[in-house]
Amino acid sequence: MWIAELSRQTDVPVATIKYYLREGLLPAGEAVGATRARYDESHVRRLRLIRALVEAGGLTLARVRDVLSAVDEESRELHDVLGAAHGALRPDKLEATDESLARVNELLADHGWRVDEDSLDRVLLASALDALDRVGHPLDPLLLDSYLMAAEQVGDADVAHLPTGTRAETVEATVVITALGAPVLLALRRLAQQNASAHRYNAVRTRPCL
Amino acid sequence: MWIAELSRQTDVPVATIKYYLREGLLPAGEAVGATRARYDESHVRRLRLIRALVEAGGLTLARVRDVLSAVDEESRELHDVLGAAHGALRPDKLEATDESLARVNELLADHGWRVDEDSLDRVLLASALDALDRVGHPLDPLLLDSYLMAAEQVGDADVAHLPTGTRAETVEATVVITALGAPVLLALRRLAQQNASAHRYNAVRTRPCL
Repeated sequence: MWIAELSRQTDVPVATIKYYLREGLLPAGEAVGATRARYDESHVRRLRLIRALVEAGGLTLARVRDVLSAVDEESRELHDVLGAAHGALRPDKLEATDESLARVNELLADHGWRVDEDSLDRVLLASALDALDRVGHPLDPLLLDSYLMAAEQVGDADVAHLPTGTRAETVEATVVITALGAPVLLALRRLAQQNASAHRYNAVRTRPCL
Repeated sequence: MWIAELSRQTDVPVATIKYYLREGLLPAGEAVGATRARYDESHVRRLRLIRALVEAGGLTLARVRDVLSAVDEESRELHDVLGAAHGALRPDKLEATDESLARVNELLADHGWRVDEDSLDRVLLASALDALDRVGHPLDPLLLDSYLMAAEQVGDADVAHLPTGTRAETVEATVVITALGAPVLLALRRLAQQNASAHRYNAVRTRPCL
């Protein structure tokens, strides 16, 4: 297909597609003469992935580039790609106190989780605990345990549901479900809070769903 | 305390504090003469809350303002404040297909969750499901069920752990735990994915935690 059709199928403006091509986020099409190129289903798929990561996942284009290079690096072990994708999904600022890092490492050790020693997510978790400490609402250990149990169910389910097709499919699914599953989980958590709050405060204006 | 001490205790620059004062995010201090004012512990606490919402929660100042006015509106019922805080934590873009909205409403009804009919989180959840559809990775119903069960545990635990002190304390805790608990949960989920992936692919380079 020509670029106009690619734009129509993905709802991404031609100018944006050309920008992604220049930036190397989207592989070049098959050249037809000096100024035209043909695109195929792989371009449609890649464009949709870029837009989803930017719009629903909230990633900057620089982060999208990191994620895509992890996806495209054929030689990597699948488990390493997961780590690389996670790394690319991290925020820019990353620092944590030794106390919180120790708390995180102890927590993971207590539960026997197999996580890389140098995983950025250890630091991210510690940093999030620090933020709660700083604002005077340290996370109750029992609440942290509830989060950990819930996260374990989600992480197990995520990995169990990864497609067993080609490597490229598995890698893309990993990135997508990690980035775009996050808003699903957080919205469900807020809805669950509303439900729990309705029961606790017996709110009169909230009707049970019909 | 003077503004310099307030700055020292909170690690927020004086210029930033003055900006928050002008913008009405931080209540004025007690005036002492024409140009000086005294601040107290309530200012320290509020400043820490603003910084946490901005830095760890990723909220814009406009959103912080919405959250704080929900916190400060004394006349609201607690359950309504939760809804207002959730509303203020929403992203700007909000649209979902009828199909996904129907899927969400059916899901919540099936589980008997008591959630406001007009809750924005219904739309947010539907919108997140749409994003997964668009990128060609529709969320498997079984995986969505796993997310829902995990979210239910988390939401119940969140509400159960709210302090039973003054109204102001409960409201602030609700906002803080919802906004700053999110990165905790997401980091734990990624760690759980790593753990599940290490077991599934039996990754050799990952050592069990010592």
